[in-house]
Amino acid sequence: MKTAEIIAIGTELLTPERVDTNSLLVTEQLNLLGVEVTRKQIIGDDRARLTEAIERAIERSHIVVLIGGLGPTEDDVTRDAAAAALHRKLTLSVEQESVLIQRFRQFNRPMAKNNLRQAYLLDGAEVLPNPNGTAPGQFISTDRGAVALLPGPPRELKPMLIEQLVPKLRYIVPPQIIRVRSFRVTGIGESDLDSLIAPVYSKYSNPVTTVLSSPGDLFVHLRATGQNVEQVDELLREVGNPIAEILEDRAYTEDANETLDMVVGRLLRKSHATVAVAESCTGGLLAARLTDQPGCSDYFQAGYVTYTEEQKSSVLNVPEALIHAHTAVSEPVAAAMAQGARAKARSTYALSVTGFAGPTGGTDFDPIGTVYIGLAGPHPTTVVRIRYGGDRYRTRTMAAQGALDVLRKHLLQHMG
Amino acid sequence: MKTAEIIAIGTELLTPERVDTNSLLVTEQLNLLGVEVTRKQIIGDDRARLTEAIERAIERSHIVVLIGGLGPTEDDVTRDAAAAALHRKLTLSVEQESVLIQRFRQFNRPMAKNNLRQAYLLDGAEVLPNPNGTAPGQFISTDRGAVALLPGPPRELKPMLIEQLVPKLRYIVPPQIIRVRSFRVTGIGESDLDSLIAPVYSKYSNPVTTVLSSPGDLFVHLRATGQNVEQVDELLREVGNPIAEILEDRAYTEDANETLDMVVGRLLRKSHATVAVAESCTGGLLAARLTDQPGCSDYFQAGYVTYTEEQKSSVLNVPEALIHAHTAVSEPVAAAMAQGARAKARSTYALSVTGFAGPTGGTDFDPIGTVYIGLAGPHPTTVVRIRYGGDRYRTRTMAAQGALDVLRKHLLQHMG
Repeated sequence: MKTAEIIAIGTELLTPERVDTNSLLVTEQLNLLGVEVTRKQIIGDDRARLTEAIERAIERSHIVVLIGGLGPTEDDVTRDAAAAALHRKLTLSVEQESVLIQRFRQFNRPMAKNNLRQAYLLDGAEVLPNPNGTAPGQFISTDRGAVALLPGPPRELKPMLIEQLVPKLRYIVPPQIIRVRSFRVTGIGESDLDSLIAPVYSKYSNPVTTVLSSPGDLFVHLRATGQNVEQVDELLREVGNPIAEILEDRAYTEDANETLDMVVGRLLRKSHATVAVAESCTGGLLAARLTDQPGCSDYFQAGYVTYTEEQKSSVLNVPEALIHAHTAVSEPVAAAMAQGARAKARSTYALSVTGFAGPTGGTDFDPIGTVYIGLAGPHPTTVVRIRYGGDRYRTRTMAAQGALDVLRKHLLQHMG
Repeated sequence: MKTAEIIAIGTELLTPERVDTNSLLVTEQLNLLGVEVTRKQIIGDDRARLTEAIERAIERSHIVVLIGGLGPTEDDVTRDAAAAALHRKLTLSVEQESVLIQRFRQFNRPMAKNNLRQAYLLDGAEVLPNPNGTAPGQFISTDRGAVALLPGPPRELKPMLIEQLVPKLRYIVPPQIIRVRSFRVTGIGESDLDSLIAPVYSKYSNPVTTVLSSPGDLFVHLRATGQNVEQVDELLREVGNPIAEILEDRAYTEDANETLDMVVGRLLRKSHATVAVAESCTGGLLAARLTDQPGCSDYFQAGYVTYTEEQKSSVLNVPEALIHAHTAVSEPVAAAMAQGARAKARSTYALSVTGFAGPTGGTDFDPIGTVYIGLAGPHPTTVVRIRYGGDRYRTRTMAAQGALDVLRKHLLQHMG
């Protein structure tokens, strides 16, 4: 497989305020060509540092894309550094000089003398015309592949990349297909998930499998490359199908962009069902998740954030005696909260969450992180008890996700 | 001046979808120490490539910060690569092993065998404890300066960076006084804010003034450097005081870590007052903001997410006739929702939010993005109408922030 490195040039890209987003676009185009990006770098406007970086990159990788530093001023050092690293001379191109002069005349702007710097080309470079600015790009074939110089402004970079650079790169890259299969997973920790599926994926270097994690939400990505669609899809089936079997209903979707609340909304809509929520420790987060998507009024009915015992009784009709007998964080109270919310909202289902998010509270039996999730509906009310780890933020986030998952599994089971 | 390089590790950071934002935070902290970041790199989970990159970086720079790749799985290669580059052995730390075992016990999760990888330390490394995750950071003094290994998840990275790494780096960086003054601002757009305060700050290169923005929330940072505290504080007064005067009550705090909901909680506690919320378009976000902080039960009473007209009537006692006469998104309904929530929760104050978050809905008079915020309390009920721009996410986020700000201003005014 051909490999590429991207070097973005500009001191402003090394401040705490700026991220380099140009490289995402370049990565996307390179990946579509079947080229793997193995390294991205950001270097300031420093000739020596940049020269050294380019030297190393062309030793390591087939394709090196330089972004930025093609302006007319002294601190635009990319042309000089590339020439030094490639041991080529920079020569004024008479043709580019006249293009520049014409461009300035067209813009009705006087051309400052330093603008001429933009008409210098590396020996043997092909020009990548820039209809949106004054700095032309440059393309240099090397023994191993190619080096490209692209301008930094996205308006100039994007068309030059897609219309000029990509067609040239096609000649030096063997044709290749890349396809991705994803699983979004909840209800299991990252290392437990990895222990389950590593025996399957670790035997394969193609597809490449990665596991990403955020609280209560894991991604498994399989990325396969090959000569044709059939071959690539066969690889994704060969590795993905056993993973799907192992994950069972812990995988809530194979659509990388579908969140758990979107899945629940889709299932509720399909069942012509509605939902309400009664929250204590999640304090509105669960309702916020369920109302995140446009059109959620099709299935979301109401939310009750009953933080006090008085509110649990007066709004959700949880008997005071029940709370006193079992405390507010208990299985019977979670069940009564769900039933009360369902009655109050006249919804098909209701979820409840009560627990100890911390950092204070908790008992010997129910320490901080313990959450009860209730589900009331046409079937008998159920309550699950889960112990989450971590701080208040993590427990609240995971409890909201956990409640959505309780409803998802129930809906899947009863949709037949 | 001391120089630093940052290497972010993770194959996912080389995809077209992901940018590395961790390095911004690290850059900010290094700059505050007077350290210049000269290069940032992103490398995939590849042991050989990463080893070579670390070797080069420690040759060139005083400080090298490695971010990510400290997880428990085979593709977490940072520990191995750093050990190879620094020619140091990796040894199982019995102490870290017991920290890990305790952590998993506390989370009530079985510890998979591969988690033990996280207990290996480079010879001579100092541990940077990680209260928010399982991977400890590591700090290694070198001849030229230091190498640090930090975890990738921002929630783990940030406190470790600020509380553990920065104090250690202070020992290897020449003393320079740097002090920051911050203003957190809401209720005004970024460019309007900048037009107001640029005439003050743009005359000074020290302090350096930056404005950062997220939906409904702006930061003004003044960063002054000098030889002694008196000189630096004088600079911060000279520029900061006129800015404070211009901002008036739009600045809700000068504590960079105090969010708007924390300010509201502080004011409520001081007033011995409680609050309830009635939400339509924000769907629980406002309640979630008010319950984000530990101890919020001191002032937060209840939340009602009344998404349907029926719920607005049955839960909040908003007269059906009022809704039919004015529609659910209107000033009288916002007022009635706030009053209903206050009565139901028996709270000192109640906030209500009703509006069109989009992407559908809205009327000629109240287009998408229009939100009514009601406030009921011991004083006459007030309603403000605000038009937010942007998508559903942005409108919901800004409306929750806007509602908090309505209550903040009211509390400030009536506390005397």
